[in-house]
Amino acid sequence: MSQFSHLTEKGELHMVDVSEKLDTERVAIAKAEVIFPEEIYPQIISQDIPKGDFLACAKVAGILAAKKTPELIPLCHPLPITKIDIEFKFIPEKFAIEVTGKVKTVAKTGVEMEALIATSIAALTIYDMCKSLHKGIKITDIRLIYKSGGKSGELILEEKV
Amino acid sequence: MSQFSHLTEKGELHMVDVSEKLDTERVAIAKAEVIFPEEIYPQIISQDIPKGDFLACAKVAGILAAKKTPELIPLCHPLPITKIDIEFKFIPEKFAIEVTGKVKTVAKTGVEMEALIATSIAALTIYDMCKSLHKGIKITDIRLIYKSGGKSGELILEEKV
Amino acid sequence: MSQFSHLTEKGELHMVDVSEKLDTERVAIAKAEVIFPEEIYPQIISQDIPKGDFLACAKVAGILAAKKTPELIPLCHPLPITKIDIEFKFIPEKFAIEVTGKVKTVAKTGVEMEALIATSIAALTIYDMCKSLHKGIKITDIRLIYKSGGKSGELILEEKV
Amino acid sequence: MSQFSHLTEKGELHMVDVSEKLDTERVAIAKAEVIFPEEIYPQIISQDIPKGDFLACAKVAGILAAKKTPELIPLCHPLPITKIDIEFKFIPEKFAIEVTGKVKTVAKTGVEMEALIATSIAALTIYDMCKSLHKGIKITDIRLIYKSGGKSGELILEEKV
Amino acid sequence: MSQFSHLTEKGELHMVDVSEKLDTERVAIAKAEVIFPEEIYPQIISQDIPKGDFLACAKVAGILAAKKTPELIPLCHPLPITKIDIEFKFIPEKFAIEVTGKVKTVAKTGVEMEALIATSIAALTIYDMCKSLHKGIKITDIRLIYKSGGKSGELILEEKV
Amino acid sequence: MSQFSHLTEKGELHMVDVSEKLDTERVAIAKAEVIFPEEIYPQIISQDIPKGDFLACAKVAGILAAKKTPELIPLCHPLPITKIDIEFKFIPEKFAIEVTGKVKTVAKTGVEMEALIATSIAALTIYDMCKSLHKGIKITDIRLIYKSGGKSGELILEEKV
Repeated sequence: MSQFSHLTEKGELHMVDVSEKLDTERVAIAKAEVIFPEEIYPQIISQDIPKGDFLACAKVAGILAAKKTPELIPLCHPLPITKIDIEFKFIPEKFAIEVTGKVKTVAKTGVEMEALIATSIAALTIYDMCKSLHKGIKITDIRLIYKSGGKSGELILEEKV
Repeated sequence: MSQFSHLTEKGELHMVDVSEKLDTERVAIAKAEVIFPEEIYPQIISQDIPKGDFLACAKVAGILAAKKTPELIPLCHPLPITKIDIEFKFIPEKFAIEVTGKVKTVAKTGVEMEALIATSIAALTIYDMCKSLHKGIKITDIRLIYKSGGKSGELILEEKV
Repeated sequence: MSQFSHLTEKGELHMVDVSEKLDTERVAIAKAEVIFPEEIYPQIISQDIPKGDFLACAKVAGILAAKKTPELIPLCHPLPITKIDIEFKFIPEKFAIEVTGKVKTVAKTGVEMEALIATSIAALTIYDMCKSLHKGIKITDIRLIYKSGGKSGELILEEKV
Repeated sequence: MSQFSHLTEKGELHMVDVSEKLDTERVAIAKAEVIFPEEIYPQIISQDIPKGDFLACAKVAGILAAKKTPELIPLCHPLPITKIDIEFKFIPEKFAIEVTGKVKTVAKTGVEMEALIATSIAALTIYDMCKSLHKGIKITDIRLIYKSGGKSGELILEEKV
Repeated sequence: MSQFSHLTEKGELHMVDVSEKLDTERVAIAKAEVIFPEEIYPQIISQDIPKGDFLACAKVAGILAAKKTPELIPLCHPLPITKIDIEFKFIPEKFAIEVTGKVKTVAKTGVEMEALIATSIAALTIYDMCKSLHKGIKITDIRLIYKSGGKSGELILEEKV
Repeated sequence: MSQFSHLTEKGELHMVDVSEKLDTERVAIAKAEVIFPEEIYPQIISQDIPKGDFLACAKVAGILAAKKTPELIPLCHPLPITKIDIEFKFIPEKFAIEVTGKVKTVAKTGVEMEALIATSIAALTIYDMCKSLHKGIKITDIRLIYKSGGKSGELILEEKV
């Protein structure tokens, strides 16, 4: 059974020492969904509101947040991120906007947390811009869907559609 | 029907002007759940791992992140936060840790986003410390459950248990 | 003749003590121009490139930077900004994009530097997104055009068109 | 005709993927001018005001800002800066202080934006320290003058005097 | 006997709730000493090295750090600092530079930590600039010497000389 | 006699150019002591106060601060830190808590300042959490005790006990 890499046997916090690891290309992709109450979803997808600024703002927020990951998550290492991408997809049958965040680096450790932060902050920025419409918006299913690079190799948790 | 406060009629980004609003005490409470795959949950709740450092790390991360809200969410105003509190509750029947973040201020606008950020980053920090155990951990149901202060007064979305 | 408020008589750095000043509404507006080499200006204004994301990115960068002013300018005080707005205008006869940044607060000192930072960083973000087209882009005429609030009252340096 | 590297064909924001680029030594030099109204320029250059603290403050501000470039410019990559230098030159015939910012790295992409940010923030810090003298100070001609390293090699836009 | 204000009775972290406290003028002054090995002290005080840039750099670093206090010290509240001052004094008989940091605010809680951070980071910046001379430099006696404002009133721990 | 690496011969600030240095593994260890007035030390070491949260908070603060070193110390280079560790030891005969901070990287320059910042901010966080008990707490003897890597090789200033 695997172990907590971030706690010592006594349960003390422990930052992983990555000094000996190799610099390899590493990719991580995360997803989340912003779920809107049914009654406001038509406003969200309406053609009357151009979505350029709206989604661009969430994208920029997510990109900048990914770069702040080691400031936000105490045991993360600072990494030379080489690419951040954030995509949005309207899923009307779930009254949702799906957010996908992808981060790449060439470094000694992976970028899962960077991808999760990019995705979460992009989703929370959408929440912020829509919260005047309804207080019942939720963000759900923040999760890793893909990871590659490093000793553990490629891991496909979900097909990215 | 209410409107997007953060977009102009043309759909351009718009930071709300709060210059004329009154400084009143404002509170917001948010919740989220970190859901673990069933096979690793016993390790999470095991008495063998003292939880002091583990949950304290997530709490400190959430508290610091709440103070970074205007850096993370583009259209948020900087506010003089007067109190941040984060609590954790193990919910074994859902294989979950529930995170509750509460933020207070005396200011011209509310602290919903601060409470949501505190909660989300505390949850993501738990994720980070457990991700070596399993790649299938999820964070879900990030939502506002309470809000008071300002013109809209008190809003109880869920009873805090 | 007026004096350097930020240096003592010996020329030592001196942060102004604003403890005794009153909290009043204060506004500042700054402008700058991004000047493109003539040969690439058609690409900048072309309808083929939707400008939504392009200008939204510069706007978000400017808004976030204004909130970072006391981190960037050593002798600036942290202020509770109540509004930030950034506008862009294409000026084809100058092969330019004009950037206008407006910042408001209710505080003990003014927001000139916040308006100048918002404007400058929005302009530099435009530069960044266009620098692959040509290395000869310039940013020029960063200046204050309006200021109100505080003891010195209203100051109109240029009519905002 | 060259293309926007930071926008997709649909005009969506696009961070360049530098994963495959080589780590090479890269240098960039930028310049700007702070232009003072004629009537206050004698105070700026007066020997009565020792310039040690004054210019050192602007230099430190510029150096620290260069390190914040990926926080300020959304699509910039975090880079391991190896050297930052900022110089000032009084140009009495233009009632100006010229600011020159030079940044070096060994990395997968260049440091133009870092040099431009260092220069701009140093100039804005000078503005801040002199703004009590006159509201008509301007910053002009922020531009790249030199760039080397990477696939595009050396580019001399202006001789550095 | 007084109690830990930052821990609950169970020993859990606890940010003090300052919502009900009054906004009053508050001042704090801290001191520290940078102690140099005797053999390098002549170089530190030598007239051959102009100290303008050297001490200005430490002063700017301390001023900027004071503004970052709530980012650095987890349970500190963000406060609208109204004044930061840092002074240096050579104390040859102790082979020392004494650093004094003074911070003021008009707020609901005090600025002791801001004064201590300003002083510590100014001292560490001096350390950084001198560390090539000798590895045996120490920073010592970081302490609060004065505090006023709020319910506890004025507290003079040491006369400021 | 060695020289100031951070000042030019004219005494101007000078960031060291590390472009040509080799990436090697580098380690630095620093120590400091938080000294409590005798009358409150029994409370500090009392078994009635579980120390989990208390010391974990100081540890997390120190770890996060180490990553902020280039933001805090103007002439420091940003480095890809590979490991940060902070340990605490109660020394009853000195009424002290000793803090030891260790930082590693694989980079072109060393991590002494990172180790000193980690140690200092962890100590200051302890101060903050105990300052309600007594205003006479001090932090002393912040110093480097070990350094390895780079051209100067291993340097043992004190045996780490």
